[in-house]
Amino acid sequence: MSGTLYGIGVGPGDPELITLKALRLLRACPVVAYPALETGPSFARAIVAEYLVSTQIEIAIRMPMEEARFPAQAVYDRAATELSAHLDAGRDCAVLCQGDPFFYGSFMYLFDRLASSYPTSIVPGITSLTACAAALQATLVSRSDVLSVIPATLSEDALRTQLAHCDAAAIMKLGRHFSKVRTVLAELDLTQHAKYIERATLPDQTIRPLAEIDPDTVPYFAMILVHRRGSALA
Amino acid sequence: MSGTLYGIGVGPGDPELITLKALRLLRACPVVAYPALETGPSFARAIVAEYLVSTQIEIAIRMPMEEARFPAQAVYDRAATELSAHLDAGRDCAVLCQGDPFFYGSFMYLFDRLASSYPTSIVPGITSLTACAAALQATLVSRSDVLSVIPATLSEDALRTQLAHCDAAAIMKLGRHFSKVRTVLAELDLTQHAKYIERATLPDQTIRPLAEIDPDTVPYFAMILVHRRGSALA
Repeated sequence: MSGTLYGIGVGPGDPELITLKALRLLRACPVVAYPALETGPSFARAIVAEYLVSTQIEIAIRMPMEEARFPAQAVYDRAATELSAHLDAGRDCAVLCQGDPFFYGSFMYLFDRLASSYPTSIVPGITSLTACAAALQATLVSRSDVLSVIPATLSEDALRTQLAHCDAAAIMKLGRHFSKVRTVLAELDLTQHAKYIERATLPDQTIRPLAEIDPDTVPYFAMILVHRRGSALA
Repeated sequence: MSGTLYGIGVGPGDPELITLKALRLLRACPVVAYPALETGPSFARAIVAEYLVSTQIEIAIRMPMEEARFPAQAVYDRAATELSAHLDAGRDCAVLCQGDPFFYGSFMYLFDRLASSYPTSIVPGITSLTACAAALQATLVSRSDVLSVIPATLSEDALRTQLAHCDAAAIMKLGRHFSKVRTVLAELDLTQHAKYIERATLPDQTIRPLAEIDPDTVPYFAMILVHRRGSALA
């Protein structure tokens, strides 16, 4: 009997924003894996550090710095092999995913390698999307609103097109793309409908007006929510 | 000292999919309010029924059947007045929201009436979006994908436009709009990229091929996820 692979969403950062199901499973699994940078701590692990059990086998899936955005297939191959050995031995494996496993996560690279061979179960997590809306006290969408979730990595043209076709937008993964996004929002006269937040739900969460932000300081975990209530953008 | 208004996401239906924070707060509040139909039980209350405390004051915000989709202002006025009395008396009030408070919820009608007068805090919840992706074992979005969340209530033309501008789509609130959506997906040659699910995370959760569904049986809590991996729709 092989073990089960669990993809477990651990939410946006506040340890209290994991679900009861995630907590039960991540404590029950004898093996816990999580993404991490080449050196230094893992954000996903840090979120749930207080819940881990000292007897658990931990697997840090370390991504070389220069490849963190474009996952190295070899790293996931190696992690899948390591997890396979535990699963074959009947040990359940929890893979920790910041936010939600299927919402811009790296979990899909393990899922694609393992789900067809082992029983697999996914536990959804609180996404940065709703965490940011809650922290900003801003209704994300209501009634017949169309919401677009847009990575800031898109080109200016693509950003313009996307923003033209929705009522509300969440622009994610800002980082070094912030200036481009701020410019496009200004061109579309959307600045006054945009709210900026970084590190939502963490102790150093910051909310500031768009105009006051130094583009050189914007982290990857920053988001802009846009909503023109009562007047569709299209 | 007035009480605090909490908007609490209780997730998609499985009682284990609420967060630790939601559980702590909904138990600690002496007053618990929730939306309900004119007669019959409240879905939001049912999700957390096992966690409620017998001494809590409960307020069912009952929506007349014919107005369930277009909220009656008078109903929310009355509920806000009732909650205000408790908040003025220093009692914290939890408003239960299925899914997430700011993701197509009715909470915004109370938020708009009360948040400027009382301390207010929002606890994000697991949305149907990630719950459905988890149950379908389908990656929602990755890397630079654009995700559009589209209410099925839109016109055929609007649905076509929206689906043309995203990599992945979640089509919500299907109910009696199912046939229209299925037709548009077929026209756009997206049927083979679409997955259907109803009542995600509940005991009677159902996943079926699009072609096999009787449109007369589709509930409001049904969703279609569309993803054409590796080939943008636009």
